[in-house]
Amino acid sequence: MKLYDFKVAPNPQRVNMFLAEKGVQIPTVEINTRERAQFSDSFKAVNPASQVPVLELDDGTCIAETMAICRYLEELHPEPVLFGSEAKEKALIEMWSRRAEFMGYLAAADMLRNSSPAFEDRGLPGVPGGVPQIAELVERGRNAMGRFFAHFDERLGAVRFVAGDSFSVADITTFVTIRFAARVEVEPPAACANLARWFGEVEARPSAAAV
Amino acid sequence: MKLYDFKVAPNPQRVNMFLAEKGVQIPTVEINTRERAQFSDSFKAVNPASQVPVLELDDGTCIAETMAICRYLEELHPEPVLFGSEAKEKALIEMWSRRAEFMGYLAAADMLRNSSPAFEDRGLPGVPGGVPQIAELVERGRNAMGRFFAHFDERLGAVRFVAGDSFSVADITTFVTIRFAARVEVEPPAACANLARWFGEVEARPSAAAV
Repeated sequence: MKLYDFKVAPNPQRVNMFLAEKGVQIPTVEINTRERAQFSDSFKAVNPASQVPVLELDDGTCIAETMAICRYLEELHPEPVLFGSEAKEKALIEMWSRRAEFMGYLAAADMLRNSSPAFEDRGLPGVPGGVPQIAELVERGRNAMGRFFAHFDERLGAVRFVAGDSFSVADITTFVTIRFAARVEVEPPAACANLARWFGEVEARPSAAAV
Repeated sequence: MKLYDFKVAPNPQRVNMFLAEKGVQIPTVEINTRERAQFSDSFKAVNPASQVPVLELDDGTCIAETMAICRYLEELHPEPVLFGSEAKEKALIEMWSRRAEFMGYLAAADMLRNSSPAFEDRGLPGVPGGVPQIAELVERGRNAMGRFFAHFDERLGAVRFVAGDSFSVADITTFVTIRFAARVEVEPPAACANLARWFGEVEARPSAAAV
């Protein structure tokens, strides 16, 4: 088994923080997306969608998509449980992880991809060119991040971790999203005291070093 | 248990097709999003993110997000299995379901929300106003749909169903995405024969009547 990885990119960081929580190490192959290595023929044979991370199994099966990789690793290494133990807990973890992705992560990604010169003509992930940046997505993304921070601050006023009493993959998604947003100079408002309390707690975990 | 539903909207349709595959019926409450019922105070108490579907449990817990609801229903009604049985199968189903969402569903949603007069000033779901439509997202979405069709056509040349040998929730996501795209007049190219073969097979299932 090996992980196609790029340690400074946010989706690989989600897998690396997940692995650190599990106390598991996997051999990695670096795909430097800043040098466009994801568009090489050799990597397209691994993942035609030209994105990292990818987990290659010993039988040659390539599992792409961050959450699919994390779920596979949870099956192999069930402890500590990061996707929940019983039906309701599992559903709430999935709900909050997806909410972090759709409200937060995608907004931060839109902001970066539609503003940074590094992504000129590459407004969508996995496409080597021909996708012009759309400047209006930066402002839309900034507003979406504001709603994301407010929504999660309210949530974290009621619960210790994003999905409830226990640390889960939903916290990993949320933590990586906030770190990712900082790259486009978007930070949680000072008024979000609950979010700040939670962020400090997650940042103190050894696994946060992966992000 | 009850489902906040709107039978003509694509995310509720995913849950309804899933329920039909399971042979399960749940009492529903219609939230007519064409009349903006998702922004009422009573529905915001159910889901502050103002989106359907939501599954309300008997203890009052509200589970939002389509895939979180489907996962909960899979726990309650394991047969027929729609999220896979063993680790690799589960991971491939998650991978392909997410790929259908990120490459296809979100592109179709972008096209609709950024062109239809019904969504004027509501370019993002769950936000009652103040999000101007971005015309360039229509063309970007159309191009993304082209890549989605080609990618899934290639996949379905190698396997019977989207995630492998068995019908799964990944087929539901893909099927609903293609039906959804037709509303913005985007259809799979005639050359996508594998996709057409698969689409015909899925469309013939009784559960397709939910879409």
